[in-house]
Amino acid sequence: MKEVYLDNSATTRALPEVVDIIQKVMLEDYGNPSSMHIKGVDAENYIRMTGEIIASTLKCNPKNIIYTSGGTESDNLALIGTAEAMARKGKHIITTQIEHPAVLETCEHLSKMGYEITYLPVDSEGRVNLDILRKSLRPDTILVSVMHTNNEIGAVQPLDEIGKIIRQVSPDAFFHVDAVQGYGKYRINPKTLGIDLMSVSAHKLHGPKGVGFLYVSDRARLRPIIFGGGQQKGMRSGTENVPGIAGMGKAIEFIYKNFDEDIEKMRGLKSYAAEKIECIEGVRLNGYNGGDSAPHIISVSIEDVRAEVMLHALEDKGVYVSSGSACASNKPAISATLKAIGVDKKLLDSTIRLSMSTFTTKEEIDYTIECMEEIIPKLKKYVRK
Amino acid sequence: MKEVYLDNSATTRALPEVVDIIQKVMLEDYGNPSSMHIKGVDAENYIRMTGEIIASTLKCNPKNIIYTSGGTESDNLALIGTAEAMARKGKHIITTQIEHPAVLETCEHLSKMGYEITYLPVDSEGRVNLDILRKSLRPDTILVSVMHTNNEIGAVQPLDEIGKIIRQVSPDAFFHVDAVQGYGKYRINPKTLGIDLMSVSAHKLHGPKGVGFLYVSDRARLRPIIFGGGQQKGMRSGTENVPGIAGMGKAIEFIYKNFDEDIEKMRGLKSYAAEKIECIEGVRLNGYNGGDSAPHIISVSIEDVRAEVMLHALEDKGVYVSSGSACASNKPAISATLKAIGVDKKLLDSTIRLSMSTFTTKEEIDYTIECMEEIIPKLKKYVRK
Repeated sequence: MKEVYLDNSATTRALPEVVDIIQKVMLEDYGNPSSMHIKGVDAENYIRMTGEIIASTLKCNPKNIIYTSGGTESDNLALIGTAEAMARKGKHIITTQIEHPAVLETCEHLSKMGYEITYLPVDSEGRVNLDILRKSLRPDTILVSVMHTNNEIGAVQPLDEIGKIIRQVSPDAFFHVDAVQGYGKYRINPKTLGIDLMSVSAHKLHGPKGVGFLYVSDRARLRPIIFGGGQQKGMRSGTENVPGIAGMGKAIEFIYKNFDEDIEKMRGLKSYAAEKIECIEGVRLNGYNGGDSAPHIISVSIEDVRAEVMLHALEDKGVYVSSGSACASNKPAISATLKAIGVDKKLLDSTIRLSMSTFTTKEEIDYTIECMEEIIPKLKKYVRK
Repeated sequence: MKEVYLDNSATTRALPEVVDIIQKVMLEDYGNPSSMHIKGVDAENYIRMTGEIIASTLKCNPKNIIYTSGGTESDNLALIGTAEAMARKGKHIITTQIEHPAVLETCEHLSKMGYEITYLPVDSEGRVNLDILRKSLRPDTILVSVMHTNNEIGAVQPLDEIGKIIRQVSPDAFFHVDAVQGYGKYRINPKTLGIDLMSVSAHKLHGPKGVGFLYVSDRARLRPIIFGGGQQKGMRSGTENVPGIAGMGKAIEFIYKNFDEDIEKMRGLKSYAAEKIECIEGVRLNGYNGGDSAPHIISVSIEDVRAEVMLHALEDKGVYVSSGSACASNKPAISATLKAIGVDKKLLDSTIRLSMSTFTTKEEIDYTIECMEEIIPKLKKYVRK
């Protein structure tokens, strides 16, 4: 059977060259970077190489990178680490209603610890209201956390304007960006955007699971959340995941090699798919899907068809998609993002996400659309009373 | 040149079958366990399989296992997670003077958060003083954290007796064991030992770096330290490191397959090496090295030879050892463990660690001893005035 994987925002297939370097590091260059002999030095070199690759994509210094176990830990370190470092200055944090649970739940935790959280609303396209942001900033605001690209609907935030507003109104507040869905799809320059902290996960861009990084600007102030041997200048203890870090470097190198070309291709495919899907009866797309929207995510609501049913019907045809966000640990909860952008109540439970990768082909999209055109009328029939 | 890797307590070479399964998961079964389609189910199956393998070695239920990014995170989760869950009951924690930094530094952090820490002394063989433990337990003691096997000198703690004392004197206190150096070298049954929490790292037993687990007993109470999508029943959010977890399973399966035979062989080699090394002039072994000592670690102090010099001299011969503990992020700090067991001040900086694996051969040990016999007199000459 044909297989079309359109769940790339949940996770991606690793690149062969990523697997190759992981294999090499695990079998040959397996030293502990903290060891003083050459095997330790060799291991450290892999970390250094990845640091240089990341730094070149962000136009920063490798010393601005802290390696973590993934996007969730990066978000936790950014939020809890800043909150603890800045507690004396203030306890107010601003975020949005449509963040990933790694940010929302961490804010929830911080609110129990005495921090006050403001959740910014978004418009129907999922974009933060800048006026409300401006009004929400206070002298005791220590952190603003806004995601780059939403994982469910692909909404891209106006980070440039957000950064400017923070610098104007609350120049001492730090700016965190969860770029788990944005990095690898956009060129992001934290310095010009005024970003102090930025979370990235490797397995969303054909790298290994279990590894990611947090960009930390020179001015950011952070306390560690994991304590121990003092690795990574004390900011993240624990033996570094050298094969994972090396693999992440390879993936990032690949993604940013033919970047403009690859993204343009993906963007073209998305426009093509969006247009076709929208023509299916009873189907609507959520959020903004114009030319500069996220090139990989399409959120589709289907009247009278439950997401789970649709997902499994597509699965029977070999097409893998997601219902809502897969990162919510397969609890099919109602999506806060869809609610925040005002999706019709009866469509909340009828929304699937198609997410592409740089390897997605037009043939795969055509096949998927064919399947949807075939499946949807059939499934609708069942609910007609 | 001959190569003899005797730094296995810092990290080990991964097994080929570990690398194979990681490769398979990354390229074929790369789904996100939170995805509802078959690729998610397949990914979840790898996690389930590893859970069963671990559970069979610990005689526990797979649901007692939380996957983490490694030993350091496991220790942090055990300590901080228990401290936060139990704060209302008490704020007293007991540990030892010779714990790994992942425990010591986490205790340091907790002491800043208002917890009181008692650091138990150890005897010259590195074993906790049980009388002092008994006297240190208080009604507000919520946690006792004692390592299984010390990473620097291989001292093995009398966990059975420690567990009994805790149950007698403070039955409500929880018992955490850092088993990063002990698991894979001993059969450990947490239930019979009265252990509530136990930390393990995969890369110390020929598994991948960046993954480990925390055993959590049914009665333990724990708060998460990383928040997000609610994976692992909310105890550890973040997309699971499926290839890493699968690789860890393979490594554990291998280690516990011919366990008794392998350990007996290792133990024989250690006795053999210890005897020979002790005969070298000006050399003494630290801690207890008798028949039931840790089968893999030998701590060697060499009069008048600095550890770093010795390490690099051995490295020139292709023999890789560690000076003190490699996990202290290559800061050559004075070892708290060596101090605690009363090693002569002038030997603190002259101590190296040899750590074997199940693959270490008699030929490698013979070669290492030859090298030491040749190097040590030469190096000593330099310091003779």
